[in-house]
Amino acid sequence: MHEELRQAVYEANKQLEVHRLVIYSWGNVSGIDRQTGIVVIKPSGVSYAALTPQNMVLVDLDGRIVEGDLKPSSDTATHLELYRAFETIGGVCHTHSPKATMWAQACRPIPCFGTTHADYYYGPVPVTEAMTEAEIKDDYERNTGKVIVRRFSSLDPRQVPAVLVANHGPFTWGPNAAAAVESAVVLEQVADMALGTLLVHARQDAVSQVLLDKHYLRKHGENAYYGQR
Amino acid sequence: MHEELRQAVYEANKQLEVHRLVIYSWGNVSGIDRQTGIVVIKPSGVSYAALTPQNMVLVDLDGRIVEGDLKPSSDTATHLELYRAFETIGGVCHTHSPKATMWAQACRPIPCFGTTHADYYYGPVPVTEAMTEAEIKDDYERNTGKVIVRRFSSLDPRQVPAVLVANHGPFTWGPNAAAAVESAVVLEQVADMALGTLLVHARQDAVSQVLLDKHYLRKHGENAYYGQR
Amino acid sequence: MHEELRQAVYEANKQLEVHRLVIYSWGNVSGIDRQTGIVVIKPSGVSYAALTPQNMVLVDLDGRIVEGDLKPSSDTATHLELYRAFETIGGVCHTHSPKATMWAQACRPIPCFGTTHADYYYGPVPVTEAMTEAEIKDDYERNTGKVIVRRFSSLDPRQVPAVLVANHGPFTWGPNAAAAVESAVVLEQVADMALGTLLVHARQDAVSQVLLDKHYLRKHGENAYYGQR
Amino acid sequence: MHEELRQAVYEANKQLEVHRLVIYSWGNVSGIDRQTGIVVIKPSGVSYAALTPQNMVLVDLDGRIVEGDLKPSSDTATHLELYRAFETIGGVCHTHSPKATMWAQACRPIPCFGTTHADYYYGPVPVTEAMTEAEIKDDYERNTGKVIVRRFSSLDPRQVPAVLVANHGPFTWGPNAAAAVESAVVLEQVADMALGTLLVHARQDAVSQVLLDKHYLRKHGENAYYGQR
Repeated sequence: MHEELRQAVYEANKQLEVHRLVIYSWGNVSGIDRQTGIVVIKPSGVSYAALTPQNMVLVDLDGRIVEGDLKPSSDTATHLELYRAFETIGGVCHTHSPKATMWAQACRPIPCFGTTHADYYYGPVPVTEAMTEAEIKDDYERNTGKVIVRRFSSLDPRQVPAVLVANHGPFTWGPNAAAAVESAVVLEQVADMALGTLLVHARQDAVSQVLLDKHYLRKHGENAYYGQR
Repeated sequence: MHEELRQAVYEANKQLEVHRLVIYSWGNVSGIDRQTGIVVIKPSGVSYAALTPQNMVLVDLDGRIVEGDLKPSSDTATHLELYRAFETIGGVCHTHSPKATMWAQACRPIPCFGTTHADYYYGPVPVTEAMTEAEIKDDYERNTGKVIVRRFSSLDPRQVPAVLVANHGPFTWGPNAAAAVESAVVLEQVADMALGTLLVHARQDAVSQVLLDKHYLRKHGENAYYGQR
Repeated sequence: MHEELRQAVYEANKQLEVHRLVIYSWGNVSGIDRQTGIVVIKPSGVSYAALTPQNMVLVDLDGRIVEGDLKPSSDTATHLELYRAFETIGGVCHTHSPKATMWAQACRPIPCFGTTHADYYYGPVPVTEAMTEAEIKDDYERNTGKVIVRRFSSLDPRQVPAVLVANHGPFTWGPNAAAAVESAVVLEQVADMALGTLLVHARQDAVSQVLLDKHYLRKHGENAYYGQR
Repeated sequence: MHEELRQAVYEANKQLEVHRLVIYSWGNVSGIDRQTGIVVIKPSGVSYAALTPQNMVLVDLDGRIVEGDLKPSSDTATHLELYRAFETIGGVCHTHSPKATMWAQACRPIPCFGTTHADYYYGPVPVTEAMTEAEIKDDYERNTGKVIVRRFSSLDPRQVPAVLVANHGPFTWGPNAAAAVESAVVLEQVADMALGTLLVHARQDAVSQVLLDKHYLRKHGENAYYGQR
């Protein structure tokens, strides 16, 4: 069941390696069928070479395995928390890609230093608060989702489809699994460029609101005019 | 029509991926036939894998589509402004290549720190002024071209075939589309080396005028003696 | 004899090149059969392209060649010292991988800045003391092993399967040769991310003990729940 | 004539691209037959893809073309100066490899921060003085060789087979063309690691003389014991 979604999530996971965002079995992508509430996700600790559409795991929004012989990704509870809170998203991606992880480990949001960033993220890429001892000790993976959701209490996840979990790494999302991976690829470039910007000029300011509006809205607003119609 | 130019512009666009200057559909190259005033340019938002000589778009210098089923690059108005102002150029290239973009985002010109730079650019690679609110809001892409042209009011675009648009990224050019891409490749190396130079020695000075003259002019002056005759 | 171990050590050595940890003949991996006390190790100064399972060298724990026409790696005495002192390990790997070597040359331990690190190393990756003149002059390679062992007098080599030899580079280990190489690959990523973390935020602190516990123990403790059962 | 040397120099030039030290036609390698005083060198401005053993250029030590339809590398006079002054060398290599060039552009010698460096270079990799106006204006390429030779007045080119020309980039050499390229590859790694070392710890000292002696001499001294006999 859900053969199309299985295939899409399988392909999105394979893209992580193509774009050099992961080594070994690090990183995982999922996609949801909002009609049935079924989430397809990578199995835990399985290398990308060994992935097939068939060994993807199907879970419901409460985390019960619906189909699959393997355990789902250990980050499944985080993905589910995001699907429950962000009703507009259809795919989630988690990696430890190096450049984005540097910012996450430094516990700093990525300022919008240029139009590459503004084309995808409508403002800085936020970083979560550090998790509390209680949040880490019990239900850690679900609480990881909760600190992300808390960070987005006044943000629209469609406008900023990425977050840095403090001391950890990035989570990204989008309308589907492929879009979640695209956001992860772009975030890695944006994180790289932002670090280099600071190395050239340590006190560089973020771009103006008007430039941010222009670039974000020409691709994403009602009056978007980028790409083919 | 313009089959040869279509082919050349198509190949130049494909080189962006070969030299790892772009991901997804970022970046675009154009070429002009000065006899007819026809510009061939990449279609907007199309991936490099999907490009063919046939889906290139032909526009005139006022931006009217002359041939092509797709919309031209959203940066077309910038390319056209450069062709109108810099009459000696035959190709234009725009990317968000990471190292050059770091300098653009830091709003700093790239000093000439060595002979690699001096072999291609006769002085620092300049950065534009930040665009005003009015320039951003209306006719943004054309105004991007205008701030570049303004920056070159006292520079010869043949001697410095590259610019950094502040908060954005590089534009490069040359006698044809392939040369515009070569300038983009070289600029990326020069930007990388310049950042590393500052990391080794934060207060490094630019090279002397006499060394700049020597290297630039042995490749580009009347008495050039580099390469085969 | 020891055909299986020969094959495993051969494959582990080849992985060094796959993961771009080495150039030329830099780097070497060994594995031990604890039953017989036989160590299989790369021959000295032989390129990875020329390696075969057959030209691996077999030595005993005192360094006597048991089988093989070539001299064993010049670092053999270091490997043997580690096998003698760390009785739980089955494989050792040495490289000059660039990012880990930067930290070794800076004589600084790598702080645990995030969960990528905590997933593999239960605390900072330690750096040895600088070797004394006497230790360098006589029996240098064996003494390199001794300073590592001394550094681990109050550490468990199973919990921190990596060390930086001051002014030199990393040694890593694990239950077998493949695991030793995996630790080398991970260390290189961790070293890269840690340097980037400091470049984003020079005074960044290590993660909390509770987060370190959580990540290390969910993969390695008695109650590990990462991966498949 | 000199078919073997042609082949060796051709292959050494091709290695520059394999090791990603060059783009376009940047960089050149030569080799000398000390019996006849004939130097084989890359033609000027020709891409690596277009190189063949047949289009290498043969010159004598005074720079006269002995065989070849193309012009020799524009850096030929620098190569010849080195062959005349350093009688023990058989190959010379020049590139603008990024990491080594960063140090050259910063006009700083590369300190010996670790054993990777000490395995190949018996002390810091020196940087030349900046060239004078007169040296740049007339006979520039030959004078580039002269400032290198001057820098080595109290150094043995066999013990330090590399130099950084200030504001320019590295020249390396060795007993033959292949060894000159190997030194270029190693120098690039050493330069990368040295910059990273400073980023981790800005005031890091060079290694002790006793460690430098140990590593250099175990590979290069009379009592060398690295590699196969």
